[in-house]
Amino acid sequence: MGGLNMDNKTEQESYKLVSREYQRQDTQIAIKENIIDSNQFHVIAGPCAVESKEQILETAWAVKEAGATFLRGGAFKPRSSPYSFQGLGEEGLKYLAEAREETGLPVVTEVMDVRDVELVAFYADIIQVGARNMQNFFLLKEISQLGKPVILKRGQCATLKEWLMAAEYLLYGGNPNVILCERGIRTFENYTRNTLDLSAVPALKDLTHLPVFVDPSHGTGKRELVAPMAKAAMAAGADGLIIEVHPNPEKACSDGRQSLNPKDFALLMQDLRRLAQVMAREMVQKE
Amino acid sequence: MGGLNMDNKTEQESYKLVSREYQRQDTQIAIKENIIDSNQFHVIAGPCAVESKEQILETAWAVKEAGATFLRGGAFKPRSSPYSFQGLGEEGLKYLAEAREETGLPVVTEVMDVRDVELVAFYADIIQVGARNMQNFFLLKEISQLGKPVILKRGQCATLKEWLMAAEYLLYGGNPNVILCERGIRTFENYTRNTLDLSAVPALKDLTHLPVFVDPSHGTGKRELVAPMAKAAMAAGADGLIIEVHPNPEKACSDGRQSLNPKDFALLMQDLRRLAQVMAREMVQKE
Amino acid sequence: MGGLNMDNKTEQESYKLVSREYQRQDTQIAIKENIIDSNQFHVIAGPCAVESKEQILETAWAVKEAGATFLRGGAFKPRSSPYSFQGLGEEGLKYLAEAREETGLPVVTEVMDVRDVELVAFYADIIQVGARNMQNFFLLKEISQLGKPVILKRGQCATLKEWLMAAEYLLYGGNPNVILCERGIRTFENYTRNTLDLSAVPALKDLTHLPVFVDPSHGTGKRELVAPMAKAAMAAGADGLIIEVHPNPEKACSDGRQSLNPKDFALLMQDLRRLAQVMAREMVQKE
Amino acid sequence: MGGLNMDNKTEQESYKLVSREYQRQDTQIAIKENIIDSNQFHVIAGPCAVESKEQILETAWAVKEAGATFLRGGAFKPRSSPYSFQGLGEEGLKYLAEAREETGLPVVTEVMDVRDVELVAFYADIIQVGARNMQNFFLLKEISQLGKPVILKRGQCATLKEWLMAAEYLLYGGNPNVILCERGIRTFENYTRNTLDLSAVPALKDLTHLPVFVDPSHGTGKRELVAPMAKAAMAAGADGLIIEVHPNPEKACSDGRQSLNPKDFALLMQDLRRLAQVMAREMVQKE
Repeated sequence: MGGLNMDNKTEQESYKLVSREYQRQDTQIAIKENIIDSNQFHVIAGPCAVESKEQILETAWAVKEAGATFLRGGAFKPRSSPYSFQGLGEEGLKYLAEAREETGLPVVTEVMDVRDVELVAFYADIIQVGARNMQNFFLLKEISQLGKPVILKRGQCATLKEWLMAAEYLLYGGNPNVILCERGIRTFENYTRNTLDLSAVPALKDLTHLPVFVDPSHGTGKRELVAPMAKAAMAAGADGLIIEVHPNPEKACSDGRQSLNPKDFALLMQDLRRLAQVMAREMVQKE
Repeated sequence: MGGLNMDNKTEQESYKLVSREYQRQDTQIAIKENIIDSNQFHVIAGPCAVESKEQILETAWAVKEAGATFLRGGAFKPRSSPYSFQGLGEEGLKYLAEAREETGLPVVTEVMDVRDVELVAFYADIIQVGARNMQNFFLLKEISQLGKPVILKRGQCATLKEWLMAAEYLLYGGNPNVILCERGIRTFENYTRNTLDLSAVPALKDLTHLPVFVDPSHGTGKRELVAPMAKAAMAAGADGLIIEVHPNPEKACSDGRQSLNPKDFALLMQDLRRLAQVMAREMVQKE
Repeated sequence: MGGLNMDNKTEQESYKLVSREYQRQDTQIAIKENIIDSNQFHVIAGPCAVESKEQILETAWAVKEAGATFLRGGAFKPRSSPYSFQGLGEEGLKYLAEAREETGLPVVTEVMDVRDVELVAFYADIIQVGARNMQNFFLLKEISQLGKPVILKRGQCATLKEWLMAAEYLLYGGNPNVILCERGIRTFENYTRNTLDLSAVPALKDLTHLPVFVDPSHGTGKRELVAPMAKAAMAAGADGLIIEVHPNPEKACSDGRQSLNPKDFALLMQDLRRLAQVMAREMVQKE
Repeated sequence: MGGLNMDNKTEQESYKLVSREYQRQDTQIAIKENIIDSNQFHVIAGPCAVESKEQILETAWAVKEAGATFLRGGAFKPRSSPYSFQGLGEEGLKYLAEAREETGLPVVTEVMDVRDVELVAFYADIIQVGARNMQNFFLLKEISQLGKPVILKRGQCATLKEWLMAAEYLLYGGNPNVILCERGIRTFENYTRNTLDLSAVPALKDLTHLPVFVDPSHGTGKRELVAPMAKAAMAAGADGLIIEVHPNPEKACSDGRQSLNPKDFALLMQDLRRLAQVMAREMVQKE
């Protein structure tokens, strides 16, 4: 697979390689001993931003013990205002790699700048494309050259069709290892940070063969809503979750309001394991 | 409870009686032998519109057998265009009462016109206020005079706060038996008819003591998304569901596209019963 | 005209009588010596709510002197919260009639309850249907029985098509004297109270023969944005405006934040008269 | 000006240098003999995409004759689908430069990739940052290093505050020559491609000293709505417009549906000149 034999490259506003018609069986993505598909259920956990070596190591051990199979953390964090914390950069990537070395958890981290694609790919096991870059087509083209798995977050005001066309850029460029991640859309409702569109999960399962994850942390922006929405995501048929966990959410450099502490994360993981049995999903526990 | 001892009636833009601060314990609503609260889980099922005596009876028996505990059906159906089917009116109410007589299922039906409140209340066990009337304050005031349980659907572009203020009209007028029902909000995404905002469920559980139901049929507008979103609603903590079931969805006078047939509904009910065990919810099966 | 010879009453989701195809020439509505059409430009002004005889009289004289041709004021004001000011009711209607008696300005006021339609029609020269009632089909049917002109505001999340179908209810019921009024839609942007969709004006001019007004007061919710958006509405091709004016906005019972004082309103009217010359619009000044 | 003396760089979620409090007088941007400010009114016109030397030259002469003072055209056009026309790249930039050479019109063109910033800056008189890149902070940082004027389009679901924070990145990095351009936001209404938020114009005039332009072509997506919304934008207080003009809209490689032909553009320019007199705006006509 991979966009080699396209026969209608000029077709406007469409996708092909990502569609369920093009490939009936679910895409399987192997990352070390983990298989991302519709049998296993994976939880990616960690802080929004890597803040220090101690913080990322402490979090890594905690989420591993609770049952997470991947570690997440942001090294590049340019945010809405130029006066906000902008991330540790390559230093952050190195801390992530150390945490992987120690805990064995593969690492998920975001790339935002085309010039950093090689650098991030060197350290990451899964490259994340954030919501703001879902239609950064130059970045998608660059990433599509790598075989490395990509998690493509939905843009804040992207339709399902636009999202699938963005994924098409990755497959068309040669990279079939794409995971979609619903993370909330912008609506008039401002009680929550975004409106988590869980109906996107079964809709995407009809439209595409790609795995679908959900990020209830960004999707709600409120810690107390993360656990119920994580369970709802699994019940809706999601293949995995991305959850923000911070050893001390009140002191987080960014997004503390939506981060779980390790204890609440561990309780959620217990609930998810019980739910997984009903949903016929396997949740691997690392040793 | 019930709006008798209000001390700040002049306060602008607020709610009081519906809030969790005002009443910590969950509201319990007894309808015949059914208790709507946070222990039991109830499914209200039936067609969008009552079309004939045969149609409503057939549906009533089918949904009862599958495990629904309430029958729904619309008698007054004025819709977006004056040229669409407008409902059977009082004749439809009589058919619903006959179906209740035969099956024992209590009946849920909508009132839209203040002049019909007494008539609908005579036939219905639960009065439904639809999304378009959530802020029809004259209708709310009229219904608040009755003790009869009310299911108040969320307006298509209502914030949680506006919804709670609308519920406040009912409690303030003297009717504490109010059930809230999330049914999707209007957003830019048009793959689904509405965007089902499941995060409203745990959010409302924090904000109010009233029971919270979910309508995945209107919330998605697509039959194939109803079952996954029904399960997700239960996992998110909902107290019940409203689901459109029609003996022959392709021939329905309205909303056939989002109705389940009796067989698919029965399969969904099986899944819900298994999920209920994990969620510590009781689902009563009528004999 | 008037819905007498409909040949496809069963057609779903459509409108006919309001369409430009059905009637090419613009609808003209005569109210006393005023003609609402695409030649004249009318400004309806007054407070959100009638608060007292003095308040409405003072406002009526002030807006007349500035050049308004209609007086507006709300008598029934049930609002989001039951604890907010709910209006003076029939007393308010009487004060409006007195103000008309004294100033000669015809009166625009809202009806919300089907049971009040006759009462409001007795006092009003133009009946207003508010945004929340745009799809209150029983109210529309009742009003359609009267020949009295109606101003139909756009629902907060109504598409142009839904709005036109709501207007169709009025024409189909026999009332051709319908004015549409854009008043802002609900979007993610919360700097303004609503997002005034001025593109609706030229779009409606293509789709329908009905006059189109704009309400920049509700449309923005901010006094300082009213004048620029009023001018923009005229430049976009609107046939008139509804503007909130209060003798003392800081003390208004409702919506003071978006009301102009008489002095600023008079300045705006001067600007509009100059703009009207460029736009080939006639603005009648009453003596 | 330019971010040199920031005293609270750590402040979260805020802007400073772009605010009206920080600088009361309007920013003036000089580009050759043109001054962009609140006295003059400038129209930037041209095709969505540069398609050939002939096409851009023909358009340049036509829009100049009609009174446009800047020529626009896209050289890099990666779009929603990888199967759509992706632009001519540097060749397109050269054609733009030739058109400037011949007509004297300064050139506006978009940069999307950080690696192209120097290249685009070499050819362009004004660099455009498109809606999808409004929060591409690495691109903003790169552009902020140049003194070259920038036109920063509003993101499709960006609030005014987020937009101003994005502009703050440019000023903070040292580039004060920033023009904001409203181009429509994404809402539930799909009759238009986007909902043009003209209230953003007077709102921004209160909040910031930067010039504000409007793009009614992308803002509506429909040719027939461009002229009324262009006039409305001027009446709302905009400092200029960006309008898509194509010699043969039906054959355009992209966005033909929203492009004016040269004749309709010339008629619009006449209307704008008459309106400019009422709005006390100067429209310079090049020889």
